[in-house]
Amino acid sequence: MENTFHTLLSQQCESKQSRLCIGLDVDYNLLPDNFNKSIDGLFDFLKMVIDSTNHLCASYKLNMGFFEQFGYKGYQLMEKTVEYIDNRCFTIADGKRGDIGNSSKKYAQSIFNLMGFNSATISPYMGLDSVTPFLEDPKFGVFVLCLTSNKGANDLQKKMVASNPLFLSVLDMINSLDNSNAGIVVGATQEDEMRLIRKNSPKTSWLIPGIGKQGGNLEMSINIGNNNEAYGIINVSRDILYYKKSTEEDIYERTMYYHNQIKGFLNE
Amino acid sequence: MENTFHTLLSQQCESKQSRLCIGLDVDYNLLPDNFNKSIDGLFDFLKMVIDSTNHLCASYKLNMGFFEQFGYKGYQLMEKTVEYIDNRCFTIADGKRGDIGNSSKKYAQSIFNLMGFNSATISPYMGLDSVTPFLEDPKFGVFVLCLTSNKGANDLQKKMVASNPLFLSVLDMINSLDNSNAGIVVGATQEDEMRLIRKNSPKTSWLIPGIGKQGGNLEMSINIGNNNEAYGIINVSRDILYYKKSTEEDIYERTMYYHNQIKGFLNE
Repeated sequence: MENTFHTLLSQQCESKQSRLCIGLDVDYNLLPDNFNKSIDGLFDFLKMVIDSTNHLCASYKLNMGFFEQFGYKGYQLMEKTVEYIDNRCFTIADGKRGDIGNSSKKYAQSIFNLMGFNSATISPYMGLDSVTPFLEDPKFGVFVLCLTSNKGANDLQKKMVASNPLFLSVLDMINSLDNSNAGIVVGATQEDEMRLIRKNSPKTSWLIPGIGKQGGNLEMSINIGNNNEAYGIINVSRDILYYKKSTEEDIYERTMYYHNQIKGFLNE
Repeated sequence: MENTFHTLLSQQCESKQSRLCIGLDVDYNLLPDNFNKSIDGLFDFLKMVIDSTNHLCASYKLNMGFFEQFGYKGYQLMEKTVEYIDNRCFTIADGKRGDIGNSSKKYAQSIFNLMGFNSATISPYMGLDSVTPFLEDPKFGVFVLCLTSNKGANDLQKKMVASNPLFLSVLDMINSLDNSNAGIVVGATQEDEMRLIRKNSPKTSWLIPGIGKQGGNLEMSINIGNNNEAYGIINVSRDILYYKKSTEEDIYERTMYYHNQIKGFLNE
């Protein structure tokens, strides 16, 4: 079977019976005491997280802002982290990129070819020609922001265009690609809208943030996000990385909790 | 006078009688032969460009994708370039960032505090709470994508919300801030829309791409983009950096050409 965005995601989800994505949000303030507050200390922490969770999660998401806060050393840490994951899980560069064609090409070059991520999150405001440069190689794919989980989702995404909210225009844009390496981001906080989006895109895989602190419902997100043709992966960041005292046991315990919850909801 | 986004931009524009922004798009394929095709070679080229043009342009714009294509070494080059500019011009981190609040904070930390840029370009799709973390310190500011110069601008930006195009909703969002450190990006390719946007935001400064290859009109962009209360700075990238053979003389000649054109249009 050829390796594509969809088959790579599928292999991870099916072989591990998992839809869990762990968000590797690095933070000096939350790093446990036994790790140095340095780039090396962060890398040691991430290696521990990855080694103790990779068999339980389908994906790791690296929020690029959390790495870029440390400048080029953080960027290098991001590169080293993807290399360390070494395809044990599906990887997402969460940078909400998107620019005119030749600039988007450079971002794709950086994220896919240079760093080796499987996918990237993309902001759709600049339209289709800002997204397509990320789709040229079927091995790599995108999750385009459709409906996000923050309060600001109301500011533009829910504006009514004719009789439909703007986020359905984004969906139309993605559907027009007829491309299996284009997924979308759908926040877990809004059930009615999630059902509407799923109805309008039965074959599109989702990255689902908003579980945990933001109040999204896990069972509902698994049920709506997943069907026979598409995957909906659930991102959890700090509720795993910074659970209890962030020991290896704590992180394993919390990952196992989510893993089992998700497996249960999938088999309902 | 306190240093703010607006006063810093104003000082550059007024003292040099310039509205020119040079886009420092680095590209191995276009680098003149006498520079090494290496990160050091790119830095040498950028130093030459900066030294021969900084007295003629108000601003430098670094397209982050062009630097990130080289991974952490490109990110480091970006940091060194901002340091080399050393406030001789107003600086723009052109990365179209924007994420939920705590992530946008990290990008702001990277772009403003760590790298020392004066401003950043922001994508508005995630709404106001994705923009405000970039506005907390009045020294720094943003240019939020309003109407871009690419074909994809038609896909979402011109969708009609009630009786107005979506890009006016972005403008409403920015106007609601009543904040002088929030500017917008307005492409030079669409005259009617530019007039509409200026009418609806007389006090908002603009970053104007789309001159040159994309066919935007310089005179019209200067006239609509600038008034007594707001600046409209014109970005030119490859038509300066890769003019003729990209010698110091070529680059100076082309920068002087744009500088004089702009000065003439400002004084009409």
